Amino acid sequence: MTVTEKNMANAIRALAMDAVQAANSGHPGMPMGMADVATVLFSDFLKYDPQAPKWADRDRFVLSAGHGSMLIYSLLHLTGYARPTLEDIKNFRQLSSPCAGHPENFKLEGVETTTGPLGQGFATAVGMAIAERHLNAVFDNDLVDHKTWVIAGDGCLMEGINHEAVGLAGHLGLGRLNVLWDDNGITIDGGTELSTSEDIPARYRASGWHVVSCDGHDFDDIRKALGEAEADPRPSLIACKTVIGYGAPTKQGTSATHGAPLGDEEIAGTRDALGWEHKPFIIPEDILTSWRQLGAKGAAARSDWEGRLNGHAQAAEFTRRMAGELPDGSAMQDYLAGLAKYPPNWATRKSSEVALGAITAALPEMIGGSADLTGSNNTKTPSTTPLTKDDYSGRYIYYGIREFGMAAAMNGMALHGGIIPYGGTFLVFTDYCRGAMRLSAIQNTRAIYVMTHDSIGLGEDGPTHQPIEHVQSLRLMPNMHVFRPADAIETAECWALAIKRADGPSTLALTRQGLPPLRDDVSVNRCEKGAYRLKAAEADKRVVLVATGSEVSLAMDVAAKLEAAGVGADVVSMPCAELFDGQDDAYRSDLLGGSGVLRVSIEAGTTYGWERYTGLDGLRFGIDSFGASAPIDDLFAHFGLTVDAITPQILKKIG
Amino acid sequence: MTVTEKNMANAIRALAMDAVQAANSGHPGMPMGMADVATVLFSDFLKYDPQAPKWADRDRFVLSAGHGSMLIYSLLHLTGYARPTLEDIKNFRQLSSPCAGHPENFKLEGVETTTGPLGQGFATAVGMAIAERHLNAVFDNDLVDHKTWVIAGDGCLMEGINHEAVGLAGHLGLGRLNVLWDDNGITIDGGTELSTSEDIPARYRASGWHVVSCDGHDFDDIRKALGEAEADPRPSLIACKTVIGYGAPTKQGTSATHGAPLGDEEIAGTRDALGWEHKPFIIPEDILTSWRQLGAKGAAARSDWEGRLNGHAQAAEFTRRMAGELPDGSAMQDYLAGLAKYPPNWATRKSSEVALGAITAALPEMIGGSADLTGSNNTKTPSTTPLTKDDYSGRYIYYGIREFGMAAAMNGMALHGGIIPYGGTFLVFTDYCRGAMRLSAIQNTRAIYVMTHDSIGLGEDGPTHQPIEHVQSLRLMPNMHVFRPADAIETAECWALAIKRADGPSTLALTRQGLPPLRDDVSVNRCEKGAYRLKAAEADKRVVLVATGSEVSLAMDVAAKLEAAGVGADVVSMPCAELFDGQDDAYRSDLLGGSGVLRVSIEAGTTYGWERYTGLDGLRFGIDSFGASAPIDDLFAHFGLTVDAITPQILKKIG
Repeated sequence: MTVTEKNMANAIRALAMDAVQAANSGHPGMPMGMADVATVLFSDFLKYDPQAPKWADRDRFVLSAGHGSMLIYSLLHLTGYARPTLEDIKNFRQLSSPCAGHPENFKLEGVETTTGPLGQGFATAVGMAIAERHLNAVFDNDLVDHKTWVIAGDGCLMEGINHEAVGLAGHLGLGRLNVLWDDNGITIDGGTELSTSEDIPARYRASGWHVVSCDGHDFDDIRKALGEAEADPRPSLIACKTVIGYGAPTKQGTSATHGAPLGDEEIAGTRDALGWEHKPFIIPEDILTSWRQLGAKGAAARSDWEGRLNGHAQAAEFTRRMAGELPDGSAMQDYLAGLAKYPPNWATRKSSEVALGAITAALPEMIGGSADLTGSNNTKTPSTTPLTKDDYSGRYIYYGIREFGMAAAMNGMALHGGIIPYGGTFLVFTDYCRGAMRLSAIQNTRAIYVMTHDSIGLGEDGPTHQPIEHVQSLRLMPNMHVFRPADAIETAECWALAIKRADGPSTLALTRQGLPPLRDDVSVNRCEKGAYRLKAAEADKRVVLVATGSEVSLAMDVAAKLEAAGVGADVVSMPCAELFDGQDDAYRSDLLGGSGVLRVSIEAGTTYGWERYTGLDGLRFGIDSFGASAPIDDLFAHFGLTVDAITPQILKKIG
Repeated sequence: MTVTEKNMANAIRALAMDAVQAANSGHPGMPMGMADVATVLFSDFLKYDPQAPKWADRDRFVLSAGHGSMLIYSLLHLTGYARPTLEDIKNFRQLSSPCAGHPENFKLEGVETTTGPLGQGFATAVGMAIAERHLNAVFDNDLVDHKTWVIAGDGCLMEGINHEAVGLAGHLGLGRLNVLWDDNGITIDGGTELSTSEDIPARYRASGWHVVSCDGHDFDDIRKALGEAEADPRPSLIACKTVIGYGAPTKQGTSATHGAPLGDEEIAGTRDALGWEHKPFIIPEDILTSWRQLGAKGAAARSDWEGRLNGHAQAAEFTRRMAGELPDGSAMQDYLAGLAKYPPNWATRKSSEVALGAITAALPEMIGGSADLTGSNNTKTPSTTPLTKDDYSGRYIYYGIREFGMAAAMNGMALHGGIIPYGGTFLVFTDYCRGAMRLSAIQNTRAIYVMTHDSIGLGEDGPTHQPIEHVQSLRLMPNMHVFRPADAIETAECWALAIKRADGPSTLALTRQGLPPLRDDVSVNRCEKGAYRLKAAEADKRVVLVATGSEVSLAMDVAAKLEAAGVGADVVSMPCAELFDGQDDAYRSDLLGGSGVLRVSIEAGTTYGWERYTGLDGLRFGIDSFGASAPIDDLFAHFGLTVDAITPQILKKIG
């Protein structure tokens, strides 16, 4: 057939509607509406090479409106990526296919980030754009010089996280970030006028963005708009006026095309309307050839770039960082050795700060930050000077009061590569960024959450600020490692484990209050197995106390009182339940004690779930209501978490 | 001393700095900065009567910047509310005092909503303003005609939820909502220029707001601005240019005043600077008298209003609704009786929709909505026509893609009184609104969350949309009741329990997929005890299967296969673990079986925590990884949740 841009775009439309129909599930409207815009982007603007999907200096493309996944699957296939194959696309949304309902970066190399939860792709792209500017500043321009492109829908723009992402990008002046807004006037419930009256361009301008608009079905107009966006030094929003489900004769422009197959009749009508006479999944040779030629255009730039990398003075360091490999060195062990000499009684947030001082000095890839709680989360170190619009080489981001935007940006930096991000807020406000923490876990990103004020131990700020269910609820999240260290040495050990963990996120739950030192041995990272015996019973062992974080020292005090009463008690510190669960039976049962031994858990949070370690016959000390506002000692007494409250209950239980 | 407005405001400043100093903890900066603005608000604009804190037609005042709690405690005391007393204020942030670190509506009558988690007070106030307009539309103007006032800080405005709240308020044209923005240019980390470059007034205007500004220390200018805000038909943002910690000689205008006591020396300097010569907690008689006179001004309006209510045709219904009492009637029982005749095999989201049809017809106080998933959450009924800017009498809100804003608005409606809000999204997106769900639980609000697509059973949308940890993680939240019904009858019963629950929120976890009917008995609400024996063992009882929601029918099939193998098995349906945990020992142990009986749980989510019901010796079937994108049957097979996968493991275990 005649190779026109429209026909090339129609190949996307046909694949999208046919794949959704075959799966009897999916979202054809968005790919059909944005096919023309995407064709221009992949023709003349995006820097990519299907033969080298992980080329470090490629542009990053994020389909924030992830439900339109058939758009990216079509583009990757048409431009010549090894996957998805046509067979993969025919198996859209089946277990066997990498073409999942929503794009999953762990299944397809051409997918930069997993999207679907609205707003997050956009906010993740902000992190990628930060990463690019930072690496550009600390490495040579020859090595890092690319853009970040996003396709976002009304849903992405309406979500609260959009405000945070837009604010951050505008503040940091991320001019290489360009967002193509699929301005189709439709959401699932119907026209956007049902729920919003916003002047979106005005809002973006208010945050320092450049805004341009185009007719999303006019190739020249699209090209002109994208060119203007590229040229402008500010981050750009390109409002692409489109028709959702473009081509579907009776359904286009309506929410009926959004999230359901068009149906055989409508699909036939669409074929007629588009002049697309080919059977499902048949892409005519000349159209495919043209697409492949487009896809091949980037090879030269990639090859040039490789030439520049080869022999570049920064090649080894750049390659190491992009591979996510840690440098050799003994910084952590030296730091631990220092701690062991005079173990301090710091709050674990303070222990974290001091450990971070050593870590960030040794690891230039670490970029820190806080959602406006720098002095409370103790996240800033001498090595991490501010990353600002005027100095992207800095390594500390003042995220502002934007927990969700921060976490998503951290994902973006980790996914970009070359950076290990960490960021802090109060543990209770994981409720504000949980959606992004879950995407860290799904995507296996090395994002490290520094969550301080981890219990009623924060004191007077009261129940709205006191985590009760949070530590446990994060433990429920697959692939999230939750660390709750008990003293300065454990804190450093947990940091070492979090950094070493290349394939998933970690959360450090840290105290506001000071804690006594419990250890002075540092030859082995005892936190590595998730739990260990901190103290063995002296008298005949009848009790095993399992505790975490600030309650380990309490458990030690309880144990001392039990021993004084002739009752032998082990104390097990369990800084990471997930790692402990991964140990073999022998290790776990040795630690938790055999039959006839009473297992007792102590953690200043919900007791729900601790039955896993104590059994039903054990005792669980914790807090199963909301907290209260009072000085710390009053609170621990009020909630019964004291030696005097706990010990008699244990003695009574063992008779 | 001379009674001037400044001196009256200084009384607030003195109480704030002295209370924080006494507690050695708290936030003096904001109350000191906003004291002048608040004085004007409580003098000439706010409609309130300290003698009748629950007067239905009072203006609602929300201190969204809840860390500035000493502002509202001072105002309530000075204007003459029974609590807090001066003694209460002296005990600021102590267990014995209702003056908690952050304002708690369940401790002080003059506090309309619990604040502290930033952004939420503002978004909750949007719900209050919706409630007011709705009740104004369905009741007489004589009964409901008030405003909602908010004090918000930069943190409240930077949070993502602010975008959602501003968008919703602008779209619904909530002209009686006026927000006083404490524009002090300071956040915890330092100047706002560290993290934001936004033109805030421009952003608000872009969403249909009216914006006016004033010098927050010039009483005439404040008065003028508030007057303009009142007069404008749009929601208003009043930018009050203030100095944080106003009066503190060396610290004012800096973040040092934000979250820590000023210290004795700075406090002495402040006394000098303000000309406030009185000792801590001493309010001179003439100043207090003037404040009390201000506080007394509202009594006449309140008395007039009571006069209008007395004998009003709508008095009984209005009073019933504001008291949160349910009407008499048999709608639910009639509906259940109908179901029992021909129990349908609906998805529980569909069962919920049909039940809601009966419920919303019977209960005019129910206002529904969805975060742009109306057709998926099945939240709209014939009785709930749209609530729009042009028709506030509607009972269905198209919240848009604003989960967090929706949940906070639901809290606001519930707290306002007269309304029982319910709202829907996908269960997985509780991660987006968890912060507000927690405030529902803390505040004991009757907000009902309709969370559909509650497991891998949603199929092809894949892991980003499939809850794994969510049901269990909501169970961890104190005071949240999580219902996961198994068929149409259980769904109706759970709805009845959620509505009856006047003192806390409920979450209904509902399926996308159809489920077979399991019951035809409706004489007793069997869900009321949280769990019940759905099927008793026929052969000698050796197994108890405990399941929820969609897995109850699977448990029934497993039980049938076990019985066929000569193994007696009970099936326990557990639609609400929290209610079950509240039953006595006898009931719980009878249901879960004695020693020698194998307890088995089946729930298509994390198994973590199910040890509470199975013990360590039991078996737990569930999913401890993320889901996948595929048709439902393939997924249940892939994750081993089938009769054929489960039954042999049980038989093997019991030998």
